[in-house]
Amino acid sequence: MEWTGVGGGQVKRAPVSLQTVSFQGEAGAFSQIAARELAGPDAMPVPLPTFVEVFESVVNGKCDAAVIPIENTLHGSVHENYDHLLRFELEIQGETFVRIVHNLIAAEGVSFRDIRRVFSHPVALNQCLRFFENNRGIEKVSFYDTAGSVKMITEEKLKDAGAIASAAAADIYKARILKKSIEDDRANFTRFFLLRKQARARARRSSDGASLYKTSLVFTVRNIPGALFKCLSAFALRDLNMTKIESRPLRGKPWEYLFYLDFIGHPEQPSAKNALGHLAELADMLKLLGCYPAAKSGK
Amino acid sequence: MEWTGVGGGQVKRAPVSLQTVSFQGEAGAFSQIAARELAGPDAMPVPLPTFVEVFESVVNGKCDAAVIPIENTLHGSVHENYDHLLRFELEIQGETFVRIVHNLIAAEGVSFRDIRRVFSHPVALNQCLRFFENNRGIEKVSFYDTAGSVKMITEEKLKDAGAIASAAAADIYKARILKKSIEDDRANFTRFFLLRKQARARARRSSDGASLYKTSLVFTVRNIPGALFKCLSAFALRDLNMTKIESRPLRGKPWEYLFYLDFIGHPEQPSAKNALGHLAELADMLKLLGCYPAAKSGK
Repeated sequence: MEWTGVGGGQVKRAPVSLQTVSFQGEAGAFSQIAARELAGPDAMPVPLPTFVEVFESVVNGKCDAAVIPIENTLHGSVHENYDHLLRFELEIQGETFVRIVHNLIAAEGVSFRDIRRVFSHPVALNQCLRFFENNRGIEKVSFYDTAGSVKMITEEKLKDAGAIASAAAADIYKARILKKSIEDDRANFTRFFLLRKQARARARRSSDGASLYKTSLVFTVRNIPGALFKCLSAFALRDLNMTKIESRPLRGKPWEYLFYLDFIGHPEQPSAKNALGHLAELADMLKLLGCYPAAKSGK
Repeated sequence: MEWTGVGGGQVKRAPVSLQTVSFQGEAGAFSQIAARELAGPDAMPVPLPTFVEVFESVVNGKCDAAVIPIENTLHGSVHENYDHLLRFELEIQGETFVRIVHNLIAAEGVSFRDIRRVFSHPVALNQCLRFFENNRGIEKVSFYDTAGSVKMITEEKLKDAGAIASAAAADIYKARILKKSIEDDRANFTRFFLLRKQARARARRSSDGASLYKTSLVFTVRNIPGALFKCLSAFALRDLNMTKIESRPLRGKPWEYLFYLDFIGHPEQPSAKNALGHLAELADMLKLLGCYPAAKSGK
């Protein structure tokens, strides 16, 4: 919150436009942490049950922006969200990497020695196996959602139960963190995208800091060996740095492939513009998903 | 089960070597379906709680083989299993694609109109949202495992509950399928690998059917743009068909990448052998994960 001095006193500046940002999951989900980083602390988070509803909320104008996970260091790319990026006309306008930190959380007044069972999403429970091995008296109980499990144990005022979720979830549901960072593998990061409606006019000049921009695109080629090699030459011949390349077989079309490609550069920069023109000659389909300031990978 | 005629009668042939095949999950998991396809119906399935234990079971000699999921059409590559492939000295000896079909299953004697709640893994529940929209009176209840939810409802003889899991799980726990294939998206396939201890001596000649073999490898390069392009030239210049290429940033090493690459060919075939030699010159690290008969992708 910013303050502007006016006369002798201070006046709280009203938010000019309160942004709404949708994400999949309950309040306190890791996507909400990403939303806060990408849209700022004043944006209003809008939790929705499915990814489709998240995309639709921006297309319909019900929300100003959306935040989606696109890949995780342990689980790979979220192909479902690439499918939605192809189908819905939204633009990637930002990226961030969030470290997935699992905390043992309980309702106010409950201490660690009271805990007999711990609720969370099975994926989160499975990422904290060492904790359960070291605390054999504590039972794992599956729940629909990480943040939702904190909501439930606090609402039900459970005296013998904990939940595994983000610190943000503890904060939102006014619960206490009993043990921080109980996940087995700390190299667990998720990359998130900020999406908005396409705003071509808004494209930034980046001649001075082109290396700070990343461009994401999807393309298809037939008959991989020669074709992919030629497609990549569009970037290699212009010394453009790729940061992601991934193939995905096309459904019902054996030997046809879709590629996800990210490179460092801005489409207004001459070499990037030429590379994209060159790629367009070679690819059957090419879709630019967005150009945005590159985030630190945190890895 | 095969029968061999001996004299006038028939003698049941004793299994020469009963293979044990480990997989992650409960009996009836989709990995067990893959295990049956890859190791045959006579192999003995060994369910284990984690992927690490699955790899260790073969390294320790407790199991003859393991079956692991490596990528899914909606969720992408399972990086955790690529990590284990790099760490443990096992060899990929087969692949298969399993369509993920979710069925509504109940204990014997329970009919559809009795069902008030349905148990399953949250990922499976989320893949059947249309079913729940069309049946508003039925509550979703999260459970640890898809097959495990069938085990539970049959053991507890629940009269008002169903589970979502594979047909194999219904079979194993002697439950009934009330509704087949209730998943929203039928283009949901998982690719599985069969792993065994390395058996270099066993390598097959494939000069007659080289196009039926697939080779999987992992390599690292520094400074992506030129380097990756050169690495791919090893295959492109020899007209070898790649079926997968995926980059993954290396932890703690910004701008260094690990690549997963599959191509059609057998390392004993001259062009493939030369391509691998060429790639070894260019890559910082190169590990051959295995060579195996290529399966139909089913997509």
